Amino acid sequence: MKNAKPKVGQDMFNLLKLLFPIPRSITGDGVRRTLGIIKDYIPELEIKGIKSGERCFDWEVPKEWVCEEAYIQEVDTGKVILDFKKNNLHVVGYSIPVDKVLNFDELKEHIFYREDLPDAVPYVTSYYSSFWGFCMSYNQFNKLNHNSKYRVVIKSRFVDGELNYGEVVLKGKEDREVFFSTYICHPSLANDNLSGPVLCTFLAKYLKNKDRRYTYRFVFIPETIGAICYLKRNLEHLKEKVIAGFVVTCVGDEGEFSYIPSRYGNTLADKVALTVLENCAKSFKRYSYIDRGSDERQYCWPGVDLPVCSVTKTKYGEFKEYHTSLDNLEFVTPKGLEESLDLYIKIVESLENNYVYKTTILCEPFMRKRNLYPGVSYWSAKYDYPQLLLNILVYSDGTNDLLDLANILKICPTELIDPINLLLREGLLEIL
Amino acid sequence: MKNAKPKVGQDMFNLLKLLFPIPRSITGDGVRRTLGIIKDYIPELEIKGIKSGERCFDWEVPKEWVCEEAYIQEVDTGKVILDFKKNNLHVVGYSIPVDKVLNFDELKEHIFYREDLPDAVPYVTSYYSSFWGFCMSYNQFNKLNHNSKYRVVIKSRFVDGELNYGEVVLKGKEDREVFFSTYICHPSLANDNLSGPVLCTFLAKYLKNKDRRYTYRFVFIPETIGAICYLKRNLEHLKEKVIAGFVVTCVGDEGEFSYIPSRYGNTLADKVALTVLENCAKSFKRYSYIDRGSDERQYCWPGVDLPVCSVTKTKYGEFKEYHTSLDNLEFVTPKGLEESLDLYIKIVESLENNYVYKTTILCEPFMRKRNLYPGVSYWSAKYDYPQLLLNILVYSDGTNDLLDLANILKICPTELIDPINLLLREGLLEIL
Amino acid sequence: MKNAKPKVGQDMFNLLKLLFPIPRSITGDGVRRTLGIIKDYIPELEIKGIKSGERCFDWEVPKEWVCEEAYIQEVDTGKVILDFKKNNLHVVGYSIPVDKVLNFDELKEHIFYREDLPDAVPYVTSYYSSFWGFCMSYNQFNKLNHNSKYRVVIKSRFVDGELNYGEVVLKGKEDREVFFSTYICHPSLANDNLSGPVLCTFLAKYLKNKDRRYTYRFVFIPETIGAICYLKRNLEHLKEKVIAGFVVTCVGDEGEFSYIPSRYGNTLADKVALTVLENCAKSFKRYSYIDRGSDERQYCWPGVDLPVCSVTKTKYGEFKEYHTSLDNLEFVTPKGLEESLDLYIKIVESLENNYVYKTTILCEPFMRKRNLYPGVSYWSAKYDYPQLLLNILVYSDGTNDLLDLANILKICPTELIDPINLLLREGLLEIL
Repeated sequence: MKNAKPKVGQDMFNLLKLLFPIPRSITGDGVRRTLGIIKDYIPELEIKGIKSGERCFDWEVPKEWVCEEAYIQEVDTGKVILDFKKNNLHVVGYSIPVDKVLNFDELKEHIFYREDLPDAVPYVTSYYSSFWGFCMSYNQFNKLNHNSKYRVVIKSRFVDGELNYGEVVLKGKEDREVFFSTYICHPSLANDNLSGPVLCTFLAKYLKNKDRRYTYRFVFIPETIGAICYLKRNLEHLKEKVIAGFVVTCVGDEGEFSYIPSRYGNTLADKVALTVLENCAKSFKRYSYIDRGSDERQYCWPGVDLPVCSVTKTKYGEFKEYHTSLDNLEFVTPKGLEESLDLYIKIVESLENNYVYKTTILCEPFMRKRNLYPGVSYWSAKYDYPQLLLNILVYSDGTNDLLDLANILKICPTELIDPINLLLREGLLEIL
Repeated sequence: MKNAKPKVGQDMFNLLKLLFPIPRSITGDGVRRTLGIIKDYIPELEIKGIKSGERCFDWEVPKEWVCEEAYIQEVDTGKVILDFKKNNLHVVGYSIPVDKVLNFDELKEHIFYREDLPDAVPYVTSYYSSFWGFCMSYNQFNKLNHNSKYRVVIKSRFVDGELNYGEVVLKGKEDREVFFSTYICHPSLANDNLSGPVLCTFLAKYLKNKDRRYTYRFVFIPETIGAICYLKRNLEHLKEKVIAGFVVTCVGDEGEFSYIPSRYGNTLADKVALTVLENCAKSFKRYSYIDRGSDERQYCWPGVDLPVCSVTKTKYGEFKEYHTSLDNLEFVTPKGLEESLDLYIKIVESLENNYVYKTTILCEPFMRKRNLYPGVSYWSAKYDYPQLLLNILVYSDGTNDLLDLANILKICPTELIDPINLLLREGLLEIL
Repeated sequence: MKNAKPKVGQDMFNLLKLLFPIPRSITGDGVRRTLGIIKDYIPELEIKGIKSGERCFDWEVPKEWVCEEAYIQEVDTGKVILDFKKNNLHVVGYSIPVDKVLNFDELKEHIFYREDLPDAVPYVTSYYSSFWGFCMSYNQFNKLNHNSKYRVVIKSRFVDGELNYGEVVLKGKEDREVFFSTYICHPSLANDNLSGPVLCTFLAKYLKNKDRRYTYRFVFIPETIGAICYLKRNLEHLKEKVIAGFVVTCVGDEGEFSYIPSRYGNTLADKVALTVLENCAKSFKRYSYIDRGSDERQYCWPGVDLPVCSVTKTKYGEFKEYHTSLDNLEFVTPKGLEESLDLYIKIVESLENNYVYKTTILCEPFMRKRNLYPGVSYWSAKYDYPQLLLNILVYSDGTNDLLDLANILKICPTELIDPINLLLREGLLEIL
């Protein structure tokens, strides 16, 4: 664990920086280029596609959106006042083609800005309705000349193609699976959600180099339509194999951890997430499933019912930079990314060691003869470690797993692994 | 629902005013006149009787108490200092006949007043012991001449007759019943409890004009002995049919709502009452069954075990006017009565629509193609209504009824009825 | 109950004073003398022994430690600066023999003191490792001449003998047992734990003079090894018969009561302890089983699983005098001892009367005809007692025992015994 970490935050950040400028959407070249770079880090990544038009439950895979140009030009001066080549947030995602001259009043119907964040360019999409539009900062909007004419150009096409996603499966001793889902459809937005694919990439790297009890499955998909299509293809397998899953998003800032439960918050994923957050993190914020907003919307849908929750840093929608150009390479940090990776590693290690243990001896064992207790009994001495060993033993009654022990003793579950291994070696504990 | 309400509070108040002066007791003409007036409003009311002397469990129906005169006269001056014809609270209910001349010290043994409320005439009864007495205000008591002689006259008789009660049954599509019980034995007291019969009258009027899923049963009975006798006659039927019941009392003031649970607070009546109070009322006060005081004492007795709780405005015993002449036509208001009727209508409508619903589609449905979701996704926009629809769908997993949904989403259940009907029409939801 | 109490606190204190000077350890004459004195109070006490070397689960009964002399002498002056005959805390328990002359630096490796309590001599033992040592106050330690030579003498032997314990069994109508365990291995320490044997002695005296429903078993054992050996001999019987048990320790000070639960806090012992503490004591402090420290460590071990918790005054380790010479005859008081005995008597009486009761009548009974309700109904009167009777009746539905009733009504269970007996006599209640 230690070996995986030195400077890992900086490595994560470097990957994020590499992915940042790519113009992504729910389909198309941006997604494919993104997956290609991730595959450089994890060669096990398989890139898959689902054809445009294919039905997925109530939905249909949309055509690919190809956008070659998108700009606004002031007619009189010839000045290009906005170009999506400079910032891919400037064009509303899935805009239909347009090439028109408009006056200011006509133009402003197609401009999005955020009065509350005057420097920010908002992120807007229109996947499923015929619309075109541009996004700019409120400051820029205010500088527009109300008497000018503006030429608006969007050279976009909708082509039959694929919805692409990536998948990494790392086989373990057991075929039961731990599942991680993250999304790759957002353009130049750092925390929501390049931080997610980056964390998943590094968590997969961490896992591929160790003995694994469980099989691990990572998916890198476009949000919503991608999750729905992935479920269409894999639901039966996932329902049979997945014991815990996590939607990974917004894990790059330095804010407090957040927990969004599954529909009823009663799955193994919720149990391990809460056990780790409560006993290993300094603090965290607990949300309701009502506050959900990412692919746990699909994974926890009635009838899907996968054991999936989400652990984030500051939750989407709860930081002001959310879905604007302010969610950038300054908002996420190496430190923030590494803290999140550490926490997810704790989740993984807790699951890997989550056995039910049982004491082998009636009454407290004679710890002294095994050198597990000091020879002289003296109140002012501190016997924390012997007491921890006895606490582990006394609650290892065949009903508690590692997570239960951590919650009873209020200790981070990964801190229990060494003492448990000591007790196993001494023959005082056995795995049920 | 809207149609039933305009000025309904004033109509309720007018009925209350009509009933106020009638000298009621647990039996007799006062009860019969009261029921007669209610029948004018609800011709479906059946007036029934149980003969004096009939055994009801551990009790016996008492004789009718007929009181023709009750006054105190100062002998020297001939002045009538108190006459129950002016205020029927002046005589202790079920007083035995008396015609005597007493000095002050003898008299005061038979006078009740409230030192803590010097203007109030208290309400006192002596149903089951041979006693006579008068009630007056403490101010009046203090004006009595200690050296005078007083003639006390109560011309009362105990006659074989009936204990009367009224019953309205409104048949629904189902023979399962919702039950409302209120009492009609108090003399000139407005909130406790003319407000109860008035609310039940108007709730019955509201229900008779609509399609009903359930059958509704309203009983207007003398408190305690009436409830016990009613149970003696109807227990088997009630235990088989009643799914939820309510003791209606103290519903005319403008105070906070109050909730008195059934014996364990775990019936459908408790569930609907709490769901409505928590999600539709501004605030309410929660009592324990230990605080009970009306006919839930009988309905929730072990072996009776009906699903009955009580929803009031300020609870009996918790307002200073309680059981005194201050509980009058100034203490109850049209506004207070109407607020209570509204709340009981919400309870009824919540029950009528209390089905278990189930989503028909795997994963979130494609709301956009049904025009249930905006075309352009933009964070600063508010998607409350689409989100409500999705929240209803995701928790309609075949385990939650309307009340569960309201509690999960923290929304008044009657506000869920329209969106649920929309989703049913769209085929996204079905009733289990 | 009243008769057992007058001046009982002083009687308890006198026994404690008698036992205080005896040099006790986990084995040997100190234990036997202690048990002998207790037998003078309770002739039913049987004194038993387990031979040195006998295996008890993971442990072995140690040899008896005989200590004839233990002192430190300043060589130059000949002055005896410490002698365990003056205070048996001065020698580390189970010290091996020694007779050496040491310089100060060598000596101080074998001296224990408490810098945080400069007047206190700490209590230190070394049962299971070869060691010798002395205990003194920090003030005394500071007065030692660093240039002196010191002769240290401990004339101790380890002899084959017995581990002794005492047992009182008081047969009841039922062979189900209530179990009390206290320890007798501490030397001159008053609260921890002479208060425990003293309380058990007086509780046994109280019980032997009354009709008993249950059988009562008291054991006076050395802590830890004694409990383990006792369980080795009696586990099967205890698991079959004991319905509730208590570890009695630290019951002599005037602090707040404390509750240390069984492993999961879900036994009848926990239920009765909590019911009495919550409804009869002014206040109490609730600990976790993680905070355990006495023989509940053994009684609640997985596979032992006896229904045992502990009720103390200020818990061991939570008062500064703990395990020092300050835990003396000034720290415990007659008042403190008597308060604890009273509470344990309430626990016992609550268990003895812990039946499930059932109302015999449908609806509220007609209390008036039995003179259980006042004749005149008048709000300003207080009907507490009739209301208590009705509350007992309404919750006596065949599901609640006395402890449940106490918790529902928030009344000390022993205060319910008289009203329950009245209702039983009136035929309104029956025992299921």
